[in-house]
Amino acid sequence: MTKKSDIHAVIMAGGSGTRFWPLSRRRTPKQFLPMVSDRTMVEETARRIRPLVPNERIYTIANGAQTRILRRLLPGVPARNLLAEPKGKNTAPSLILATAWVYLKNQEGVVVVLPSDHLITDNAAFLKKIEAAAAAARGEDALITFGIPPTFPSTGFGYIHYRKGGARMYAGEPFFGVKAFKEKPSQEIARSFFRSGDYFWNSGMFIWRASVFARKMERFAPDFFPYWRRMLEALKAGSRARLAAVFEDIPALSIDYALMEKAGGVLVSEGNFGWSDVGAWSALAEIWARDGAGNAVKGDSVVLDSRNVLCYNPGKLTVLVGLQDLVIVDTKDALLVCRMDLDQKVKEVLEILKKKGKKEYL
Amino acid sequence: MTKKSDIHAVIMAGGSGTRFWPLSRRRTPKQFLPMVSDRTMVEETARRIRPLVPNERIYTIANGAQTRILRRLLPGVPARNLLAEPKGKNTAPSLILATAWVYLKNQEGVVVVLPSDHLITDNAAFLKKIEAAAAAARGEDALITFGIPPTFPSTGFGYIHYRKGGARMYAGEPFFGVKAFKEKPSQEIARSFFRSGDYFWNSGMFIWRASVFARKMERFAPDFFPYWRRMLEALKAGSRARLAAVFEDIPALSIDYALMEKAGGVLVSEGNFGWSDVGAWSALAEIWARDGAGNAVKGDSVVLDSRNVLCYNPGKLTVLVGLQDLVIVDTKDALLVCRMDLDQKVKEVLEILKKKGKKEYL
Repeated sequence: MTKKSDIHAVIMAGGSGTRFWPLSRRRTPKQFLPMVSDRTMVEETARRIRPLVPNERIYTIANGAQTRILRRLLPGVPARNLLAEPKGKNTAPSLILATAWVYLKNQEGVVVVLPSDHLITDNAAFLKKIEAAAAAARGEDALITFGIPPTFPSTGFGYIHYRKGGARMYAGEPFFGVKAFKEKPSQEIARSFFRSGDYFWNSGMFIWRASVFARKMERFAPDFFPYWRRMLEALKAGSRARLAAVFEDIPALSIDYALMEKAGGVLVSEGNFGWSDVGAWSALAEIWARDGAGNAVKGDSVVLDSRNVLCYNPGKLTVLVGLQDLVIVDTKDALLVCRMDLDQKVKEVLEILKKKGKKEYL
Repeated sequence: MTKKSDIHAVIMAGGSGTRFWPLSRRRTPKQFLPMVSDRTMVEETARRIRPLVPNERIYTIANGAQTRILRRLLPGVPARNLLAEPKGKNTAPSLILATAWVYLKNQEGVVVVLPSDHLITDNAAFLKKIEAAAAAARGEDALITFGIPPTFPSTGFGYIHYRKGGARMYAGEPFFGVKAFKEKPSQEIARSFFRSGDYFWNSGMFIWRASVFARKMERFAPDFFPYWRRMLEALKAGSRARLAAVFEDIPALSIDYALMEKAGGVLVSEGNFGWSDVGAWSALAEIWARDGAGNAVKGDSVVLDSRNVLCYNPGKLTVLVGLQDLVIVDTKDALLVCRMDLDQKVKEVLEILKKKGKKEYL
């Protein structure tokens, strides 16, 4: 693996999830937690890309408080690379800021956008794909993304409709033309997407040359282009106040909605590298090491007559007797015991807590 | 209710249970825990008898460490009444000591022996029975006990075979002659006891005059009688060392085995005052306040789609989703989640922990 000097990795470390409550809270979303290994997911994301990209060209984008956490988690990454959004405004503003920062260093630099809350199990395949995508980004006047081959008709992901014929080849990997980005579908539509074989899940991973990003924005997202210019100027001037002013004004839209869906010439490659969005506690039952009865327990434990129990309770003893299909999560101030297939109800619980005024648990 | 000056209540506060693990531990058995109310069971036991017996005639018997806890829990009881066994040796030595202590004050004093790990829900009926039993103890040359009308063919209790005819009446209450004390029976024998209607469960509650206890011991437990005399002498001399020496020598037997089973003229009265031995977590499901779906949760909670769940987790938030028939107990260092009907397996768990050398959890 060669470290190509034009690849810049932007780790998206913002966002606040609630699906891993009570472990994840407003201030510690899952990317800052050791959900799939002993390291936080942000650390895993940085480790994963390092064979291709040195710390000096790894960037993060998150809010101010999260950036302080990132400084601790990623001590090798230069502090100036830890970009703090003045205000949380969805992914389009974040990625305009991060890409502008790269643009100022190297207009032809390749930006690899990596969400930090996903699991990738086949690192070698992942790095090979990134190298191929970087080659495609260099060779094409195109924004590039990875699509995940769907394993079931999910209504929880956006979809990418792609053209099977006429793929462009880079480093032996096909890059397909994108026909359309589709929002999260209904169950019926999800089924038809799944059956057709013409759709990927939208992974939220992107690769582009900074200059191509700028040109695409100018042409396909003219409403956003002025903010790109203002950010570039604020960064050149080193003015936090001006950057904050842009973030006040810029609409809070996702990069999919603001640019990808509108841009011509988007290419997609298959993200067949063991991807999982680790969307809820039950997803971890597939990921954590399990005993012969399918129990995955983090922490000291005695387990009797139980199967398919996922338990997170490090630093304490857990005793499970006669259980089946449960998620159990114990933290300092809250305990969750939940039937495995109802783990999405945690959202409902948080609504109830909010209504009760119990903000300390959110 | 008059406070008869001859009634002395001896609260049995020793013993170490494991059935309420992880809440109960070697050092804090259930009598020192608020299992059925906001007060510990020892405090409840003292409160229950106080309408009849002032603090000055309430005694406790327990080991040294437990006695220090009792001093805190029962501040009104004179410190000299908190009797510390030099060594844990089952109930016969404890009750010989406590009765000897009363004997020295008042040979004809009535001793009421109260276990501190039982629940009694009908206090008025209980006090009425105690008054009647005290009258019987004064009027008869007999050891007296309460028998609990069995509600199912339990193999977990000893039984008392009683004679229905020829009951002696005191304060309108019948006191039946005891034919035999029976050890915990097999399932088959338990069924025949239950069907016959001639058996009570052995409650472990006793009432006797100190002088009668001494005479019965001399006659029916001649092996034990010398220890009675030595204890009296040690107490008279105020010699801890001599008391300790008796406890070194005395056999570790239950009062049932050492005396009650052998003594003639034992009387039993029906303990129909809402007794429960609170024998395991699942027993509390019948005792604690429950919501409409049968969930009993101690502590702040959000409960969705769950029924018949018993949860003890005060001071923390508990969220239960989609559960049924579970016991959940969360403490500082250990969490138990157990199918309701398997709560007796906690003993097995403790054996495993012991074998693993994890003594900190016992």
